[in-house]
Parts: sequence; C-alpha cells; structure tokens
Amino acid sequence: MADLRRDPIIGRWVIVDTDHANKPEDYEYEQYTPKGGNCPFCYGSESLTPPEIDSIRDLHTQPNTPGWQVRVVPNKFPALQIEGDIDRRGLGMYDLSNGIGAHEVLIETPYHNKDISDLLNEEIEKFVSMYSRRSLDLEKDKRFKYLMIFRNYGSAAGASLEHPHTQIVALPMVPKNVMEELKGAEKYFEYRERCIFCDIIRQEIQEKERVILENKYFIAFCPFVSRFPFEIWIMPKKHNGYFCRISTEELPAFAAILKETIGKIKKVFPNLSYNYIIHTSPINGDGGADSYHWHLEFMPKLTRVAGFEWGTGFYLVPTPPELAAQYLKAV
Amino acid sequence: MADLRRDPIIGRWVIVDTDHANKPEDYEYEQYTPKGGNCPFCYGSESLTPPEIDSIRDLHTQPNTPGWQVRVVPNKFPALQIEGDIDRRGLGMYDLSNGIGAHEVLIETPYHNKDISDLLNEEIEKFVSMYSRRSLDLEKDKRFKYLMIFRNYGSAAGASLEHPHTQIVALPMVPKNVMEELKGAEKYFEYRERCIFCDIIRQEIQEKERVILENKYFIAFCPFVSRFPFEIWIMPKKHNGYFCRISTEELPAFAAILKETIGKIKKVFPNLSYNYIIHTSPINGDGGADSYHWHLEFMPKLTRVAGFEWGTGFYLVPTPPELAAQYLKAV
Repeated sequence: MADLRRDPIIGRWVIVDTDHANKPEDYEYEQYTPKGGNCPFCYGSESLTPPEIDSIRDLHTQPNTPGWQVRVVPNKFPALQIEGDIDRRGLGMYDLSNGIGAHEVLIETPYHNKDISDLLNEEIEKFVSMYSRRSLDLEKDKRFKYLMIFRNYGSAAGASLEHPHTQIVALPMVPKNVMEELKGAEKYFEYRERCIFCDIIRQEIQEKERVILENKYFIAFCPFVSRFPFEIWIMPKKHNGYFCRISTEELPAFAAILKETIGKIKKVFPNLSYNYIIHTSPINGDGGADSYHWHLEFMPKLTRVAGFEWGTGFYLVPTPPELAAQYLKAV
Repeated sequence: MADLRRDPIIGRWVIVDTDHANKPEDYEYEQYTPKGGNCPFCYGSESLTPPEIDSIRDLHTQPNTPGWQVRVVPNKFPALQIEGDIDRRGLGMYDLSNGIGAHEVLIETPYHNKDISDLLNEEIEKFVSMYSRRSLDLEKDKRFKYLMIFRNYGSAAGASLEHPHTQIVALPMVPKNVMEELKGAEKYFEYRERCIFCDIIRQEIQEKERVILENKYFIAFCPFVSRFPFEIWIMPKKHNGYFCRISTEELPAFAAILKETIGKIKKVFPNLSYNYIIHTSPINGDGGADSYHWHLEFMPKLTRVAGFEWGTGFYLVPTPPELAAQYLKAV
C-alpha cells in the first residue's frame, strides 16, 4: 500500500511506498570517488580561473596566488552574463530576454578530495560565511531579484568539476519554483498569521519521528513530503526569511549540523553524490521576508527521475521519510 | 551570450546557450545497450507477470501464453493500488490520502532488443492503438481524473526493465504539472479564443526553423522553450484535447512520425536513453478539451539535472533548439 502525501507549501503530491519500503542496501546508486589530476581549483592553478572576486586567505598573500582557504571566482562558462541591461522582447507568440545575471563559483577548500564531512567545523564556517558575504554584495545590484546558492557534489549530481565548490547565480527574475513556494507560504501566512515553516518545525520537533539532528539553532529532518528518498531539510529554528541574515551565533551551529548531516548520510550511502540548495527570500523587495523561512534542501542521488515524475510532478518515494530518519539517526 | 526564453504555456524560463552551443559530439551521455537474459516480458515468460488485462494476439492463442504482439499487464509493483475508495485525511498540518489508482505495463513487442525505430510501422500502430484502447477502458472508472502514459527507455531514463514497454498510470487527481499546463492553456484560450498549441503549430510551420518532420496529420519539432537539449514534441495538427480520441486516419501517421523521430535522434546519438510522455486532457470532466491539445514530449537523456534546475525550475539548454533541429533534419 502507498500513501499519497500532499506538500503543505506548494500542494505537490508524492507517493510514498509504505508497504515494500526500500532499505538502504536496496539502492543501486552511482558511487562517486574523485579521480584527482589537473584541477583549476587547486593551489597553484589560480591563473586558470578568471581573477578572484573575493577570498579568505593568509595574511600577506596576494589575490590569485596560493594561501587562500576560500576563493570566489566568476564562472568561466557563465549561464548568464554580468554586463548590460535587461531587454525583454517578443518573437511571435514567444517571449525572450537577454541573459543578464551573475554566475560565481565558490571554491570551498584547497583540498581537492575533501567533502564537507571531512572538513573541520571552522573550515565549513569560513565558506558558509562567504555564501553570506557574496549574497550581501550581490544584492546591491538592483537588477537582481534572486540569489540561488547551490552545490552539486559528484558526477550523478551533475558536478562537472571534482574540486568541492558551490555556485551562486544572481537572477534578474524570481524563478518559478521559488515563486511557487513564496506564494504558498504567503497564502498560509494570510490565513493563519504564522510562518508555515515555523509550524513545520514545531510539528517535527513534537513528533520527533522525522528529526535526525537538532542543536540550539537548527534542526535537520526528513520532510513528511519528501520528493526523494533520504531527502533532508536543514532549517533555522528562529524565523528568518533571508539566508544572508544568518547571525554570528547561528553560523557555527549551521556549519556543525551541515557537517554532521552529510557525515551521517555518507555513512549510510558511501560515496554518495548529492545536491543541496539554499532556499531564501528574493532580494530587492520582491517579497517573502515574513512568510518565508530560509532553509537548505539536501537531495541525495539514489534514484533517477523518470517519465512519471517528469510528466506529473508527482514523485515516487521508495523509502518513507520516517524510516529514512531512523536509518540516519542510527549511524 | 545566452537567451532567456519564456514558455508561453506555463511561464517557465529557460537559459539557452547561443554563444558556445554544444554540438552532438560534445555530449558525454550514458550509452545504453540491452543485455538480454531472463526477462518476464519475453515469449514464454507470461506466467512471471500478473495475468494480462488485454492483448493483441494471434487467433486461437490463449491469454498468458505466447502468440501475442502487444500485451498489457498490471504492474507487479504498482505505485498505486486499484481497490478501495479515496480517503483523504489530515495529520497535523499535513495532508494525506490512500494511494488509489491503476498502474499498467504495456509490453510493446515480443522483441526484447528492438526499440521503436527498429519496428515496422504496423507494429508501432498496434501498440499505440492499445494506448488508446486502455485509456478508453480506464476512463470508465469514475474515481480516476487523469491517465498518464509514459515510456522510459534505457537505464539513464530510469527504466528498470530492458524489454520495451510503456506504463499507464490512472490517478485520482490531476497532477500538478498537468494542472499548470491546463491553466496556462485555458488563460490563453480565454484571452485569444484560440488554442495555444494550435498557435504554436502555426508559428512553427511558418518559421520552419525548429521543425524536424511533418506529415499530413502531425509535426515533430524542437520547442522554442526546450527544457532539455534535443527535446522534441510531436503534435497532431488538428485540434484534439484527448489522446484517446486519435482518429484511425491519424494513427498510422502518428506511428510513422514516432518511428522516424526516434530513428533520427538515435542516429545523432547512438544508444540513447530517453523518456516520452503523452500529455492529454484530464478525464471525467476535469477540463481541458477545448483549450488543451494532446501531444507527445520526447526527452533525450543527454545531460543531468543539477542543483540549479532543481532549485529554480529554470533549465540550462546547451544546444539551441534551432540548431538541434538542424542536426536532426540532416540525418
């Protein structure tokens, strides 16, 4: 038998297999181990990237030379280009615009082979604080409406370079998926005068079933309406619409829960590929702040999205999140 | 430089790389060749599947024995179960329902290793007519609101069995992705009193740039707002909201264009994995018929969906559809 579960934020249904639930050993996933070799993100190869935008580096070292701990550079093959004004136009019944935006790559660590779970808490804090520093800088550009911070780790997750990195894309419009979440959260807020995410946190903490980790400022849990098996959300307990307004007390707690979460899931699924995405409110006055609540969505690459999911927007989840949380808690 | 293009139906933006467009040889995709071996969908293994629901078979042969050309069986591991009434309930702030629906597998041919491009037109006609026959039967069940017909071919497309097959899922609600298309098409219809898909066909035939194939009843083209490189839509020229109402004149033309389209793309990309999905109006009075226009969406598995796409709902398209159409026309 299967449960149909409906996402309270955007109304998406998922089908959760409660009868023949997959155990971790039932997943045949593409394992990923870095091969190493020539890498433009390693020490000594700084000249192979465009000049750096920002970095955290040792005193007395020069930009674009070794000595950095975190380094941000423009993407060499940007999806969008930084110069110009936005120019929307029609083409018969179609609409198009030039591709204005920013596309930055944040090199998280000098270590080619270390995933987040292998780093020290302070090392993680450094690159996460850089997420926020770049966000605060990019939001000064009034052409931008949204900052998307995401990380692809491993080949199955679509990472084209091995060296651990995060991408930041500044967009001239609020993207469709974000808009749906914002609208859903706004509706709930209008109706109940409460943030839907704050309510989710309350219910999760009370029910405990799906919570994997909790510290003073954050919880990590498998969402009731997961789209993917072993999906995990990390959420600040205190309401805050904007990731970039993470406080200095929260930052170490965020680094710690991120490290521990990734450590746990990689114990259950060695050499896992995954994506994570920071969901945050739009910038420059496009709404969200009160009714939206920033969080990180972690998506392990255990299954492949097939025709059914593409066609319906329904997802088939072979392991109920309650069971996934059990496995993750146990390691 | 990149184009941002906006889908006229649901308003999704995609980013099309017009400057450094990928050529076919630039794609490193997972190639797929069937391995063969024991297969529950081959001749002589009929007892390994649940008893057949329908088949097209030689005279004087018995159900669940060899002699069939097309065979439909219930999915052995259905996403949804056929018995029972729909029972929606709340769980704190969450919603759930039991998983009522039908999940059928349509075995397209007795040949384990033949993809659609290797079959005769009449063989394709047979299984496509079965799509329609099963639809007409399933829509009699008033609990169902939508019939999703989709095909996963190859491992990268999420096919778990090699033997060519299509899946039909009957759902107790209209899924989110379909609802978005329906609403978008309805809005256009209210505003212009024309079907948006009929207008797309007109523009595509006039501009020619993106059209790959055309016969009396159908066109195959790379949509202006493709989500995936080398995405192809096959559309009936005559307005029709429901796939299952395909006419007997259209059927052979549909089989022919489907075979030729798949033949072409597999010449450009040997051993390609792909999904296709039939987009059609909801059944049992849930709207669509006038403003919606059935069509088939063909999605080659050349790239992997990564964090950016998951987060935004934006898609990055490394080959403009105009260029993809050129390559497909040339073979």
